[in-house]
Amino acid sequence: MSSQRFHLSMNQMTTRSWSVPALVEACAVLGVRSVGLWREPVAKFGLAATRKCLETSGVAISSLCRGGFFTTADPGRWREQLDDNRRAIDEAAELGAPCLVLVAGGLEAGSRDLAGARARVAEAVGELAAYAGSRGVRLGLEALHPIYCADRSVLSTLDQALDLALQFPPDQVGVVVDTFHVWWDPGVLAAIGRSRGRIVLYQVCDIMVPLPADILLARAMMGDGPIDFASLSSAVAAAGYTGAIEVEIFNGDIWDTDPRTVLDTALSRYQQLIEPHTTTEPTRTSE
Amino acid sequence: MSSQRFHLSMNQMTTRSWSVPALVEACAVLGVRSVGLWREPVAKFGLAATRKCLETSGVAISSLCRGGFFTTADPGRWREQLDDNRRAIDEAAELGAPCLVLVAGGLEAGSRDLAGARARVAEAVGELAAYAGSRGVRLGLEALHPIYCADRSVLSTLDQALDLALQFPPDQVGVVVDTFHVWWDPGVLAAIGRSRGRIVLYQVCDIMVPLPADILLARAMMGDGPIDFASLSSAVAAAGYTGAIEVEIFNGDIWDTDPRTVLDTALSRYQQLIEPHTTTEPTRTSE
Repeated sequence: MSSQRFHLSMNQMTTRSWSVPALVEACAVLGVRSVGLWREPVAKFGLAATRKCLETSGVAISSLCRGGFFTTADPGRWREQLDDNRRAIDEAAELGAPCLVLVAGGLEAGSRDLAGARARVAEAVGELAAYAGSRGVRLGLEALHPIYCADRSVLSTLDQALDLALQFPPDQVGVVVDTFHVWWDPGVLAAIGRSRGRIVLYQVCDIMVPLPADILLARAMMGDGPIDFASLSSAVAAAGYTGAIEVEIFNGDIWDTDPRTVLDTALSRYQQLIEPHTTTEPTRTSE
Repeated sequence: MSSQRFHLSMNQMTTRSWSVPALVEACAVLGVRSVGLWREPVAKFGLAATRKCLETSGVAISSLCRGGFFTTADPGRWREQLDDNRRAIDEAAELGAPCLVLVAGGLEAGSRDLAGARARVAEAVGELAAYAGSRGVRLGLEALHPIYCADRSVLSTLDQALDLALQFPPDQVGVVVDTFHVWWDPGVLAAIGRSRGRIVLYQVCDIMVPLPADILLARAMMGDGPIDFASLSSAVAAAGYTGAIEVEIFNGDIWDTDPRTVLDTALSRYQQLIEPHTTTEPTRTSE
């Protein structure tokens, strides 16, 4: 019985000066099997053109980023967000993306109703889940680091995202595990273990220490910070995940670097720090 | 049967341009019953002089900040830290402080051993607990916001701090609940509920949105950010806490403001946002 491994994918944001075809071509040359794409650059290049580019190159799409932002208390705007998310699901389906990454949204300006915001996120996922499943797209609930709770995501831990995902069928809703967002969590390894069958995407990057002035750009290349990719990757593998592992880095210095160099470094760090921990050991007990 | 309330205390860091006697005198005049003091300014003014100042004024000390920093893997330096913490316990006892606030410490430079760092924190608390109890001082384990995990505190959630505290007698080790650090936590109200008899200190401040460049100065006056003090304070009260509530704010603009104005504002915001939620309702069931 052979073991299974997950494989590297380049998220578009890491090499964001590249157009869709530039990224896809570079990945094809290096044998990188898939890419994570964002709606805006896909729209710029064109949805049909992006699909054709992927088909021609043989490079797969591991995720479409991103939907979400469900926290408004204004019913009209909340409905508009749902409509926009249905369009995002359609785009993901058109591109053959297995999942649409969702960012929950933060508190509205002046709001202190964290519980209410979280309830609206859950309600929105309930509105979208069946539609996503019908299009062959899984919604990926991504817990964001608690530092983003106020302004970006009221989903703050993997346990919280998973508890929401578990309310829906596994072919409709799952979770995204992103090392940057969850590495600090004392319960993360247990939460990953609980996520068996629910992990729709595994994203990796490190965290800058000390933090930069703009917290949105606090991500670092794997190995340049304190995150232990061995324990996290082993846990993800042990939970049965065999999909893509996306390198997603928001970092001013990396964005100023030649994307080809960034891609080479990411590949090298992946092989060094992550790949050794991606084997799903054959288990004696069947499953 | 009358209900009990907790009461306001001013943490020295909020009005840090004031000396110990300036702070104590201002609090005495306004009827603020206690202050939270830091080791460095206390040492500057003198330990005996600080004690005398408190005795003369009738202002109590709600906490001494701070001990901790237990994560080094170097046995000699770890022992030195324990010695320094014993001195901090002695200082707290000398001042009549009911608790010594502990900050766990972050990862050492270059380390990725988060589990090891957390184990060393637990071991250090085990070394100090009985000594603290013998001096009449409770160790207050403070979970810091996960954004500080790498460089300041590997204790990242109230649940995690509480699980450690529960390994020791309640007169030796408890937890500090600080709104800034825990407000985002989906499990915080349950964790506060679990903390009955273990809360040694309740600290309040808000969080700046958007964040400032220096994350250490991201604290704001209560009411100036998204934190809901009603639910958190009610939970702390319902958990039976009747001690001091310390206003502790690290904020450049506040430090540039006349400390008397800051104290007035803190009092006003406390009365408006927190005091209405501090009543421990008499319960029908005995306890």
